[in-house]
Amino acid sequence: MLEELKKKVYEANLKLVEYNLVVLTWGNASEIDRKKGLFVIKPSGVAYDKMTPDDMVVMDLEGNKVEGELNPSSDTPTHLELYRRFKDIGGIVHTHSPWACSWAQAGRDVPAYGTTHADFANGAVPCTRGLTSDEVYGEYELNTGKVIAEEFEKRGIKPAECPAVLVHRHGPFTWGKDAAKAAENALILEEVSKMAYQTESVAALSDKSDIGIEDYLLDKHYQRKHGKNAYYGQGK
Amino acid sequence: MLEELKKKVYEANLKLVEYNLVVLTWGNASEIDRKKGLFVIKPSGVAYDKMTPDDMVVMDLEGNKVEGELNPSSDTPTHLELYRRFKDIGGIVHTHSPWACSWAQAGRDVPAYGTTHADFANGAVPCTRGLTSDEVYGEYELNTGKVIAEEFEKRGIKPAECPAVLVHRHGPFTWGKDAAKAAENALILEEVSKMAYQTESVAALSDKSDIGIEDYLLDKHYQRKHGKNAYYGQGK
Amino acid sequence: MLEELKKKVYEANLKLVEYNLVVLTWGNASEIDRKKGLFVIKPSGVAYDKMTPDDMVVMDLEGNKVEGELNPSSDTPTHLELYRRFKDIGGIVHTHSPWACSWAQAGRDVPAYGTTHADFANGAVPCTRGLTSDEVYGEYELNTGKVIAEEFEKRGIKPAECPAVLVHRHGPFTWGKDAAKAAENALILEEVSKMAYQTESVAALSDKSDIGIEDYLLDKHYQRKHGKNAYYGQGK
Amino acid sequence: MLEELKKKVYEANLKLVEYNLVVLTWGNASEIDRKKGLFVIKPSGVAYDKMTPDDMVVMDLEGNKVEGELNPSSDTPTHLELYRRFKDIGGIVHTHSPWACSWAQAGRDVPAYGTTHADFANGAVPCTRGLTSDEVYGEYELNTGKVIAEEFEKRGIKPAECPAVLVHRHGPFTWGKDAAKAAENALILEEVSKMAYQTESVAALSDKSDIGIEDYLLDKHYQRKHGKNAYYGQGK
Repeated sequence: MLEELKKKVYEANLKLVEYNLVVLTWGNASEIDRKKGLFVIKPSGVAYDKMTPDDMVVMDLEGNKVEGELNPSSDTPTHLELYRRFKDIGGIVHTHSPWACSWAQAGRDVPAYGTTHADFANGAVPCTRGLTSDEVYGEYELNTGKVIAEEFEKRGIKPAECPAVLVHRHGPFTWGKDAAKAAENALILEEVSKMAYQTESVAALSDKSDIGIEDYLLDKHYQRKHGKNAYYGQGK
Repeated sequence: MLEELKKKVYEANLKLVEYNLVVLTWGNASEIDRKKGLFVIKPSGVAYDKMTPDDMVVMDLEGNKVEGELNPSSDTPTHLELYRRFKDIGGIVHTHSPWACSWAQAGRDVPAYGTTHADFANGAVPCTRGLTSDEVYGEYELNTGKVIAEEFEKRGIKPAECPAVLVHRHGPFTWGKDAAKAAENALILEEVSKMAYQTESVAALSDKSDIGIEDYLLDKHYQRKHGKNAYYGQGK
Repeated sequence: MLEELKKKVYEANLKLVEYNLVVLTWGNASEIDRKKGLFVIKPSGVAYDKMTPDDMVVMDLEGNKVEGELNPSSDTPTHLELYRRFKDIGGIVHTHSPWACSWAQAGRDVPAYGTTHADFANGAVPCTRGLTSDEVYGEYELNTGKVIAEEFEKRGIKPAECPAVLVHRHGPFTWGKDAAKAAENALILEEVSKMAYQTESVAALSDKSDIGIEDYLLDKHYQRKHGKNAYYGQGK
Repeated sequence: MLEELKKKVYEANLKLVEYNLVVLTWGNASEIDRKKGLFVIKPSGVAYDKMTPDDMVVMDLEGNKVEGELNPSSDTPTHLELYRRFKDIGGIVHTHSPWACSWAQAGRDVPAYGTTHADFANGAVPCTRGLTSDEVYGEYELNTGKVIAEEFEKRGIKPAECPAVLVHRHGPFTWGKDAAKAAENALILEEVSKMAYQTESVAALSDKSDIGIEDYLLDKHYQRKHGKNAYYGQGK
């Protein structure tokens, strides 16, 4: 079942390797078929160059495995919770890409410092609160999804306007209309995380403190690419 | 029309990928035919590995599309304004290369710290002032070109002696006699931006403050490569 | 003899190149056959792209060469001592990978700053004390192994729970159930060393000092991958 | 003439690309035939992927071109002076590799911080004094060679024990028994320059100041690889 979707998810997982976002088995991509209420995800701990589209695992939104011989990614309950809470997203990616992880480990949001960021997200990429001991020793991966959704609700951020989050001490999750777009967003997050570090460092070396993109420039760039009257690209 | 020029512009765009200056669709190259008053530019938001020379878009200097089925790069009005104001340049490149962007986001010029820089530009690479809210919400991309030209005029820098600029909070534009040379200059700018950061950092770690290339060494290196009596390379 | 093992060791050495952990001849991998009491190691100073499985050298646990025309790696006595002292390890890797070396040269443990680290080791990766002049001018490579084992004993760290060490002013040794796993651990150590630097830097830029993974999150991640009830991957 | 030597020099120049030390035309390698008193060097400003062994230029030790249709590297007088002053070297490489250039631009020696450095050089890699205005506007490239030789003489460093130098505000020159070895040394210098920066940074983040390899460990590592009783590798 869902052979087309399995192929898309398989290819999005390979994109993570092509984009230099993962080593070994450090990342996973999934995509949902909203009509059927099923999503497809990478199997756990399987090397990217060994797996085939058939190895992808089909899950329902109650967390039951519907098809597949292998165990799904250990992060599956996080994907599940995000699909339940963020109704408009179609694909999710998790990686341990080094710059995004470094901001997550430092417990800091990635600030919007320029137009590269503004083309991607309508403000800083939030870092969640840390999970409590009870949350970690309980349903850890499910609770990770809950803490992400909580952070977006608390701050009033729409998932469509910021397709990425940093989980405290852990690393990034990104999303999009499908798995391929979520993988692209994982690449963009890594680039803007790297640039944000470099921007702060370049500024600090000359004691400049007035960094941070102006609100109108953030808005302009975000809207020209994602807004109602977007004019970047080849139209809808 | 302009099939040769389209091929050159196409190839210069691919150079941006080969030089590791762009990911996804984050850059564009153009080249002008000064006699005909037409320039050719990359289409907007099209992946480098999907496009063909025929996808390149032909524009005139009033900003009209003369040929091409696709929308031109959203940065086209910036290229246009630079071709109008900088009469001697033949090709333009824009990227979001990370080191150049980081200096732009920090709002700093890239200082001339050594001979690698001096072989490229006869002084610091300027960072423009930020655009005002009116400039951004108005003809944004056109105004970007105007602000670049204004910065060079205000500082008395000749575009021929500094083939690069950083747009505040945004990123680099570079130019040259053709699109291929503009792409090379985008690579050099990224290298000298990286080295400038590293130089300041290495100096700071031992509390050295006497960095910055001496005027005579800057002049010597710039002239031996670009001056009237240049002796680098295989002659004119 | 041991043709299968030679092939495995040969391939693990090539993994060091594939993982971008070594240049020139800067690393070596070995694997032991515990039943026979013999281990196979890379020859000294031979380029990775020139050697064949037959060039691998067979050693016994008294340090005698049992088979092979070439000299074994100059680090052989360190491998030997580690096989003698750490009874449960099956493969060892040594590299001069830049981030691990930088922490070693600075004389610092690599702190556990996030889940990427916790998936790998149950705490900080220790940096040994420096060797004394007598230890260096004596049986240097053997003493290097002794100082590593001493550090683990002194701190009460089980080699199985931390498959890596930094030798003071020198660089990393890693281990695992076989040479391939030791090579993987060398890659992971390099990644977490890089991320630890980046994490401290990102935190320092905003004067954050509360970094370091919480004990319960470290425990959870380590156990879900390596503990008795591990559920990462496809089971035992 | 010297067809074999031309081929070796050609291949050493390509190694600079393979080692990621050069972009565009930013580096050159040469090798000398001491018996004939002739050396072969890369032509100036020619792309690595366009040139052939026949394009290499033959020079004598008075600086006359003996064979070759192209202009020799603009750095030829520096190579010439080094061959004259450092009697035991057989090959020379110059690059603008970013880490070595950054230390040169900062005007700092690269300190010996660990065994990776000690395997390469018996102490810090020196940075020369800056050239004076007269030296720069005079025979600049020749004077660059003179300033290098002066620095080694003033400090009492033997070229055989430190196969590299940083020219102030400029970049590295390295040497060895032939061009291939000089290229290897250019790679090693870049690696140790990067690691030295990283070591200082990792140390600074925890306010450690006791870095720098111990004299006995420097001596041991240097001698085990390069000394009379060297035992690294497969013997002489």
